[in-house]
Amino acid sequence: MSQTEPVSVNELTLEEKASLTSGNSTWRTTAVRDVVPALTLADGPHGIRRQIKGSGDALGLLDSVPATCFPPAVALGSSWDAALARRVGAALAREASALGVDVVLGPGVNIKRSPLCGRNFEYFSEDPHVTGVMGAALVDGIQSRGIGACVKHFAVNNQETDRMRISADVDDRTLREIYLAAFEHIVREAGPYAVMSSYNRINGVHASENHWLLTEVLRTEWGYDGLVVSDWGAVNDRVAALAAGLDLEMPPTRTDQEVVDAVREGRLDEQTVTRSASRLHALTRRVASAERFEDWDVGAHHELAREAARGSAVLLKNEHDVLPLPSLSRVAVVGELARNPRYQGFGSSHVVPTRLDSAWDALEAAGASTFAAGYRLDGAADDALRQEAVEAAADSDVALVFLGLPGEIESEGFDRTSLDLPGVQVQLLRAVAKTAPKVVVVLTNGGVVSVADWEADAILEAWLPGQAGGSAIADLLLGVCSPSGRLTETIPRRLADVPSHLHFPGGDGHVVYGEGRYVGYRYYDTLDVDVAYPFGHGLTYTRFEYSDLDVTETGPNEWAVECTVTNAGTRAAAEVVQLYAAFDEDRPTRPRHELRGFAKVELAAGAGTRVSFTLSGRDIAWWSVSRGGWRIDAGPFAVEVGASSRDIRLRASLTAAGDGQVDALGRMSTLGEWLDHPVGGPVLRERIGTKFTDADMPPALLELMRNIPLAKFSTFGIGLSAEFVNGLVAAVSG
Amino acid sequence: MSQTEPVSVNELTLEEKASLTSGNSTWRTTAVRDVVPALTLADGPHGIRRQIKGSGDALGLLDSVPATCFPPAVALGSSWDAALARRVGAALAREASALGVDVVLGPGVNIKRSPLCGRNFEYFSEDPHVTGVMGAALVDGIQSRGIGACVKHFAVNNQETDRMRISADVDDRTLREIYLAAFEHIVREAGPYAVMSSYNRINGVHASENHWLLTEVLRTEWGYDGLVVSDWGAVNDRVAALAAGLDLEMPPTRTDQEVVDAVREGRLDEQTVTRSASRLHALTRRVASAERFEDWDVGAHHELAREAARGSAVLLKNEHDVLPLPSLSRVAVVGELARNPRYQGFGSSHVVPTRLDSAWDALEAAGASTFAAGYRLDGAADDALRQEAVEAAADSDVALVFLGLPGEIESEGFDRTSLDLPGVQVQLLRAVAKTAPKVVVVLTNGGVVSVADWEADAILEAWLPGQAGGSAIADLLLGVCSPSGRLTETIPRRLADVPSHLHFPGGDGHVVYGEGRYVGYRYYDTLDVDVAYPFGHGLTYTRFEYSDLDVTETGPNEWAVECTVTNAGTRAAAEVVQLYAAFDEDRPTRPRHELRGFAKVELAAGAGTRVSFTLSGRDIAWWSVSRGGWRIDAGPFAVEVGASSRDIRLRASLTAAGDGQVDALGRMSTLGEWLDHPVGGPVLRERIGTKFTDADMPPALLELMRNIPLAKFSTFGIGLSAEFVNGLVAAVSG
Repeated sequence: MSQTEPVSVNELTLEEKASLTSGNSTWRTTAVRDVVPALTLADGPHGIRRQIKGSGDALGLLDSVPATCFPPAVALGSSWDAALARRVGAALAREASALGVDVVLGPGVNIKRSPLCGRNFEYFSEDPHVTGVMGAALVDGIQSRGIGACVKHFAVNNQETDRMRISADVDDRTLREIYLAAFEHIVREAGPYAVMSSYNRINGVHASENHWLLTEVLRTEWGYDGLVVSDWGAVNDRVAALAAGLDLEMPPTRTDQEVVDAVREGRLDEQTVTRSASRLHALTRRVASAERFEDWDVGAHHELAREAARGSAVLLKNEHDVLPLPSLSRVAVVGELARNPRYQGFGSSHVVPTRLDSAWDALEAAGASTFAAGYRLDGAADDALRQEAVEAAADSDVALVFLGLPGEIESEGFDRTSLDLPGVQVQLLRAVAKTAPKVVVVLTNGGVVSVADWEADAILEAWLPGQAGGSAIADLLLGVCSPSGRLTETIPRRLADVPSHLHFPGGDGHVVYGEGRYVGYRYYDTLDVDVAYPFGHGLTYTRFEYSDLDVTETGPNEWAVECTVTNAGTRAAAEVVQLYAAFDEDRPTRPRHELRGFAKVELAAGAGTRVSFTLSGRDIAWWSVSRGGWRIDAGPFAVEVGASSRDIRLRASLTAAGDGQVDALGRMSTLGEWLDHPVGGPVLRERIGTKFTDADMPPALLELMRNIPLAKFSTFGIGLSAEFVNGLVAAVSG
Repeated sequence: MSQTEPVSVNELTLEEKASLTSGNSTWRTTAVRDVVPALTLADGPHGIRRQIKGSGDALGLLDSVPATCFPPAVALGSSWDAALARRVGAALAREASALGVDVVLGPGVNIKRSPLCGRNFEYFSEDPHVTGVMGAALVDGIQSRGIGACVKHFAVNNQETDRMRISADVDDRTLREIYLAAFEHIVREAGPYAVMSSYNRINGVHASENHWLLTEVLRTEWGYDGLVVSDWGAVNDRVAALAAGLDLEMPPTRTDQEVVDAVREGRLDEQTVTRSASRLHALTRRVASAERFEDWDVGAHHELAREAARGSAVLLKNEHDVLPLPSLSRVAVVGELARNPRYQGFGSSHVVPTRLDSAWDALEAAGASTFAAGYRLDGAADDALRQEAVEAAADSDVALVFLGLPGEIESEGFDRTSLDLPGVQVQLLRAVAKTAPKVVVVLTNGGVVSVADWEADAILEAWLPGQAGGSAIADLLLGVCSPSGRLTETIPRRLADVPSHLHFPGGDGHVVYGEGRYVGYRYYDTLDVDVAYPFGHGLTYTRFEYSDLDVTETGPNEWAVECTVTNAGTRAAAEVVQLYAAFDEDRPTRPRHELRGFAKVELAAGAGTRVSFTLSGRDIAWWSVSRGGWRIDAGPFAVEVGASSRDIRLRASLTAAGDGQVDALGRMSTLGEWLDHPVGGPVLRERIGTKFTDADMPPALLELMRNIPLAKFSTFGIGLSAEFVNGLVAAVSG
């Protein structure tokens, strides 16, 4: 703090300092004299939502100044392309600057615990590693121009249902390994100017009033020195929030006097107020150095949005290489969504785009001539529409069927209740599949949908692709470029297979995170549950070969991993090479494997390249509740390199040295723990001989004894007096 | 308390009272002058383990006075026969009396959370209803003769691994609906003289020092007035344990002075000590009225053990009616376990039996002449043994293959790590199946084993059948009587399908009960996971038909359920008619169905009977954490009657009136909760008109708004000032 803390804030009155800890209006912070200027914050992980003054409701969800709608995180994450995310971030910063915005409220880095979460389109992945890397890249990009990024929603905000009240009940190990991990990575690696606390409670305590979260973990452990701002309306108790480490309440509830009173009455330390006000002041000084622009190149940003959309779509299936389409002359384009695109989600991230491409426009320009709407977006049955589409498909060589989730089904603010597309769309697909020689499905949706039983030759999952999605989809279908997106979330066969299914979204004020660390592929792969498409999966118009895995130990619990990836096909394309740390156990104590690295490499046909990763102790560590810290076990594990969590191409067995920490022995350590201990074992054996380890005892009795704490032996009257045990503990301590 | 509290305890000195709160020796309580006599307690849910003085170790696990070894709970529970359990209980009491035992340490009513739990053989079921009914019957039987029963292990002691230290981390709803439910039923219905607190911690607090468990729940809520005794060695802090509601520490740790000091120093209320001492005194007076016997009829008790074993074995499979065997003349008996039976588990419940029947002796007496051991019990490979058995089987019409778990694999004190039988046994079965014309497997095991892929025409699961198991098995194979046991636990297809698999047995001091209420069939049936054999399953030598379901509403949330069951085959047999309350939900908020009643009916060939059940509000209630109590929702559900959880024969749709409780509205109630509320809805609509419900708003925005607490509307600047909301709350309150 000290190096950024200005003398001037200390000189402000208590009232002035208190006023800095809440906004002045919905999107503006408070200015104090000429000491602290006001800042403007605006929504938008994937586009700047600069509200038009006085229009619509106060949140202005529907009305904002036009800005580029880049692909939301569901798509951008699927690119697995950190450099691309950095460029999108820089473009966002330029638009923010031009629109007078100092801090962009994004990225959103919550984990996709359930495919039903209504806001999944704003998040990157079911996996904290890819989330952390992509989130950090977006922060880097935004902040590269001096505009502030605000990582959200900290933390465990994985559902919309009852989000302002519900308690996410999660064990500590799961918190550390899954739900806090991406935040930790971004805070440590990218230094976001701001972090936004979430609406929900965590184990009973609201995130915005959670000292453990906002101070102990975020600041003390991770060393964060930026601003913590509440999600809009997330503060329930100003004084408690400040004491917990929340610096800025947004929007204001006009309760500054409560803060002043609390200080005057000795319920709140004035230093706490000063510190938060100083953090706001520090932020104003940081963004004061931002590059300032008047405008941006609308066309260039649209092209960047198109590039991002192209890099994000995932080719799930492509039988008989039906894609790319050699020509559009005998292609029937079917589906209302082809001409009336769904390209972003609803809620606070909703952007009024500068332009909007539809796939039909792009395909028509490329030579397509047959279009049939096929269904109504509102889900109402319309047999005539369907029949028209079926006939068009029957008269084609390939039916291009555009399906997806209508906007009213997925949104911030509520969760879905099913993985199914609207019935009219599924019926259309079935009918078309019966008559069309070949069927290609193009999907636009923010949350995963059921695709397991579809009769389609190819499926291109375009997600919500942003304002240039339509032309990007046409590029991919026609082979202008090769698909290079990969799944950042598993597509399950059915909702009942989802690990959180029995616990989501909870009720009665609580949602129990019963599946623990086994989120997404961590569950499916550990239990060997069939899935429709696995995490990391994605096809393209070529194939890649993996070879020459080389692992070098570079230090204690540190390795360099390299392999060669070759484009063995005839088209240029990009591969996403994935690195997993793997633990095979009969009775799992941790996920079977976890993503610990990835690299997207663009390769011309026939070209190959060497891909490098590093693997650190933290990558194989686990969070020990009893130790209150990370722990690295000594012992075997494996490094896997592959094209998805279920398409591992290379594997090497390694042995970790471990962190060298040995648990201290005590009276309540079991006989087994004593016998197996490097120091305690010899001492104990010397003193008891073969007692309790006598091979003549029944094996079951020996095993039973091993599970008993030494202190209990005297209680059972089976020897080892309290004095003996105390002496033993003294002998191995210090 | 007051009616059983003697004046005399109040007259004892503090030291004397403190001495009553711990034992005097391993199995004896403390006597004080002529006021309070000493009591003798002895292990044994299924047989009296009266230790021989001075023999072996202090616990005397291997050496005790001979007593009848009845079938352990794994078998007795599978009988689904409460009357039988009551008779076994009465016999246990008679033997206890003859052996000078005042309190029998049983029944064990923990839930089989994982098939790997080493002590599952001492427990009844994965289901709390059948556990509660069978446990209460055993308590009834024991206490019918004035001997005390001691229900154990209270509570959440569902594994052996690290049992003395581990914290079972379980949410409240799961505790109430699963892990405490059987204890509650038994305490309320059977009034056990004693309850034994378990070793483990529950959400961080040791059961023996857990005030919430031992006082708030057990005594205040359930009205329990008996004695709470620690599991042997479970007390870690005498003073904390007394304060929590634990009355008697066993065995003594000679720490009475700590209790006296705590009172003298004001850290413990003397009333607490007096109350616990009085409870012990009350128990001594209760058992003083027990019938006293010198001996028992060893032959009659052996016959009762045989009857119990016959009623407990479960016929899993019987293709082409290979059982019952018409003759033994061409039958090869294979497997060491046929002549060297496994009939009980190892640990504190281990009984020295009065007699021991082997299946081979019984079968030989009935005419069998071919026996081959086939494998060694120690698991060592022995090709000659196997070859001999294969040849015997090849030369037979039917091979009777006796398989099971050796004693060193399952025991109190540690858990299994696999569901598999020893390799030598599985190899034998495969080899025999290749050559024998027909194969019948007889299983003896305390915990469930993998049977999914076995090539066998019939499988008789005899569990651990007690000392008369061998002759009972012969009775069943030969059709002297028909099998009538039913599974009280699901047999899964594979270990990875078990709901607790990812969480069992935990580590690092904690086991997270992540699967929550979805234990056993509650999980498999809700998620529609394939199983080898479902909960409630069991075949017999006839078939039963179900008809004429009749459900009558007998009061608010109360129904009488009746149906007709008919023996449609040619042999007398018993059916276990099962009643489930069922809730069909797309996104489950509770198990799909739960057992709420059962009845075992013996029917002659061709005979039918009417079977009656009652269904109460509690049977369809759920535990509300926010309310801290049971809640009955108004709405539809179904009653199912059938022969297993997956063989539902009759079904009726019902509607519950609900408990009539309506949640109070407040500032933090959401717009949706206000609009849907019977009182608040009209009041709110009158005041806001169509604001926020206007059909012209986008549906997603309307749904988003419904999820927002009213108090937050002013924060968002979208209307409804704090004054307005306060006025609204005032208008609907009182």
